[in-house]
Amino acid sequence: MPDLDKFFSPRSLAFLGASADHGKWGYRVLSNIVSGGFQGKIYPINPKGGEILGIPVFQSVSDVPEVPDLAIIVVPPPSMIDTIRECVNKGVKAGVVITAGFAELGEVGSKLQQEMVELARKGGMSLIGPNCFGILSTPAKLYSQMPRIFPPIGPIGVVSQSGNVGLTISRRAMAIDFGCSRVISTGNEADLHAEDFVQYLASDEQTKVILSYIEGFKDGRRFFEIARQASREKPIVMIKVGETEAGASAAKSHTAALSGSDVIFDAMCRQAGIIRVHNLNELMNVGVGFICNPLPKGRRVGIVTLGGGWGVLAADACAKLGLDVVKLSDEILNELDSFLPAWWSRNNPIDLVAGAMGDEMLRVIEILARWDKTDSIISLGIPVPPIAFAAYPKDEEERKQRVQVVKDAFINAFQRIKEISEKYGKPIITAAEMPLPQGEHSLEQDIIRGVSKLNMHSYTMPDEAAMVLRAMAQYSEYLQRLQVPECMKGL
Amino acid sequence: MPDLDKFFSPRSLAFLGASADHGKWGYRVLSNIVSGGFQGKIYPINPKGGEILGIPVFQSVSDVPEVPDLAIIVVPPPSMIDTIRECVNKGVKAGVVITAGFAELGEVGSKLQQEMVELARKGGMSLIGPNCFGILSTPAKLYSQMPRIFPPIGPIGVVSQSGNVGLTISRRAMAIDFGCSRVISTGNEADLHAEDFVQYLASDEQTKVILSYIEGFKDGRRFFEIARQASREKPIVMIKVGETEAGASAAKSHTAALSGSDVIFDAMCRQAGIIRVHNLNELMNVGVGFICNPLPKGRRVGIVTLGGGWGVLAADACAKLGLDVVKLSDEILNELDSFLPAWWSRNNPIDLVAGAMGDEMLRVIEILARWDKTDSIISLGIPVPPIAFAAYPKDEEERKQRVQVVKDAFINAFQRIKEISEKYGKPIITAAEMPLPQGEHSLEQDIIRGVSKLNMHSYTMPDEAAMVLRAMAQYSEYLQRLQVPECMKGL
Repeated sequence: MPDLDKFFSPRSLAFLGASADHGKWGYRVLSNIVSGGFQGKIYPINPKGGEILGIPVFQSVSDVPEVPDLAIIVVPPPSMIDTIRECVNKGVKAGVVITAGFAELGEVGSKLQQEMVELARKGGMSLIGPNCFGILSTPAKLYSQMPRIFPPIGPIGVVSQSGNVGLTISRRAMAIDFGCSRVISTGNEADLHAEDFVQYLASDEQTKVILSYIEGFKDGRRFFEIARQASREKPIVMIKVGETEAGASAAKSHTAALSGSDVIFDAMCRQAGIIRVHNLNELMNVGVGFICNPLPKGRRVGIVTLGGGWGVLAADACAKLGLDVVKLSDEILNELDSFLPAWWSRNNPIDLVAGAMGDEMLRVIEILARWDKTDSIISLGIPVPPIAFAAYPKDEEERKQRVQVVKDAFINAFQRIKEISEKYGKPIITAAEMPLPQGEHSLEQDIIRGVSKLNMHSYTMPDEAAMVLRAMAQYSEYLQRLQVPECMKGL
Repeated sequence: MPDLDKFFSPRSLAFLGASADHGKWGYRVLSNIVSGGFQGKIYPINPKGGEILGIPVFQSVSDVPEVPDLAIIVVPPPSMIDTIRECVNKGVKAGVVITAGFAELGEVGSKLQQEMVELARKGGMSLIGPNCFGILSTPAKLYSQMPRIFPPIGPIGVVSQSGNVGLTISRRAMAIDFGCSRVISTGNEADLHAEDFVQYLASDEQTKVILSYIEGFKDGRRFFEIARQASREKPIVMIKVGETEAGASAAKSHTAALSGSDVIFDAMCRQAGIIRVHNLNELMNVGVGFICNPLPKGRRVGIVTLGGGWGVLAADACAKLGLDVVKLSDEILNELDSFLPAWWSRNNPIDLVAGAMGDEMLRVIEILARWDKTDSIISLGIPVPPIAFAAYPKDEEERKQRVQVVKDAFINAFQRIKEISEKYGKPIITAAEMPLPQGEHSLEQDIIRGVSKLNMHSYTMPDEAAMVLRAMAQYSEYLQRLQVPECMKGL
């Protein structure tokens, strides 16, 4: 296995194809590396020399006073072979080829790509790309990617065969105030493949979940062998596209990927413990679910809701996804009857009919979590104090106080839910709308930040909660199956 | 058919169960009516009299100096019969019973509900509810609902058997800067049913699309007969829950609804021209798609994308949903080759590989729209000028300028897309991430507002665009089938 630390923890990097032209990738990517605060030495390379962003430019890698750990390469295809040769001669062992125009364009590009890889391998240099957006490694403050985005350090590792999908994932993570560990856009995978990074992230302490976007495999057998080991360490959540002819054809011209049979892929995922999802919303939602929650032991769900419709939507979604919306026992009914208003639903979902104060809802959540017939809880809505519903004050000071009350109620409820989840070791997935006074956009951001600081997330829709729990139950069941001794399987 | 104008354009209303206690619905709802700016007379009613929110309280409806057009009723169940009798005796013809605690609680509640309805009907009074969140009618500035929310006037009509789902729809509409026409929470539908409001909204000029959340029918045959007529006037987009046993059981305890067979429901929807969706995100996305776009003539889609992964995701989603991602003709290939960079995908999706400036992308969109082999276009990503990728300025004035440049680029692109869509009479669905400089939350709001002012919407995910187009194609095909003379059908 190649030493991927040179990619993700480089002490120095050469940037080949540096440019002062704001429109060119040779400027944009370099500017991102600089703005991102990379702590090692940066050596921009351009035959014209000079200075870019205040950094002296070298005319060639051979002029650089040390052997850089990493080369970030954006030179055009016709200059690629010479550039790789320069790097190899210098002794560079790791290169990210961002440049497009290789195998994805057909035969001529394929030959050039092949030549490039052979040259690099002969010189002991590993390559990411070509035709990728670059990589992020937040622990190293390395933001060597085309789009201008700086996700903070965090638990989400990303392996994406599409640069812009990798970017979307990073943006989504930031929007809900979660950070990324490493984000790798693998491009055409001429040398290193998606599975190399899955393997790396599996043993990477910073990474808690691996989110992956896959168009096709260079070596499917190797991918699944590696993924099967990696999924024992942490969850791998994956979108596999090219499920249809139209998608497969698009994938081929995108990254020269051959998509393969979708049914076989599904079976392989099950065997390898990979959680397959089907769009980016699901990918993010499930990924964050794994980060924030203990695994459920099984599929039995208790649902508590502040509104009937959300409860029905959640129950429907659970049942459709194969989760078990458990029937409440007489003991539980009696316990709930003892303090809930007469009109509660007496059914799972437990519908509090918008009548519950914060403490009642939390009490119900705890009763469900303590009950040995549930494996997980879905909690819909966050109760806020009555004052939140009063006319919105015009006075600036009163306004601030009101906003603070709503924010505190929201975040305190999450804090309490976290405590219950930890006490009983069960996931509690919350979906809620924010009861925002009008025009308070900063409050929404404050609440998102407050909740993420608790390592929690507030989903926005009831069916999302069901989707997340199903994925977590699948992974949990997979891990449980691994515990069964080989000789007992099938009995 | 009852005169629903008394509900939606009342000149005066009595509010029965008015309270000065901020925690009670009798205060919250009244406070919303007042804050919403209702222009007619408001008569709060409470046996204690006094004054609430500066308005004199009457001890009984009989004391009110005129016959109010509408009664909003929040008194508890034991007082309901007397309250309805009061209203009937006064000559009130329209009542919204928000109070819960009737048929959804079982036999005793059912009897009370039945008694209430019989009393009202005998007196010529129509009822919405009980067990509902109230109603909104923005043209009348009537915000007589429990949650504190004031969506502006707009094209979205809502008929929801769940109050909190109706609320969610209103909130979502506001978040993307679209307004609502009328929002009706129908509750237990003891007297008026969902279909009465579908019928009303079909002929309501303010309403452009009807979004509906349905748990079950009091009279399924009548619903579908009315919906079949209404869907000729405007699209009806519907979530039907209770698809599973768990969901059906939850719906029963929620609004006493009997869900019925899901398969039959699907067939009925097809015959009645109802567009069925399966979650709230789809409901909003499809609804806004109808508002903003002409109908596609068929299922042939051209896709243009700034990033490969988004293109593959969109193509996959289109094919899975039965849309036809058309193969580009030689003529189109040649025309695109004449100005696109060498590395474009030469395939549909047309992948510009993040290399396109704004004008190139728009030129591609126009070529696809002009082509007689497409019925609709999906456009993924909005190109912004290179300056958007330069380091973010610290100077306040420069920062403002930069933000303005990004905003203008985004909104101008939408303006141009709108022009192309109108010129060729084809829907162009755009999904794009906002290239936001960090920390500029107000810019996001500005862009959302700028785009909605053009009667457009920027979707956030590629598969959402496919979903919207499929729904629009289904509705278009339905209307086309209606054009076929009866004697030709089946030939």
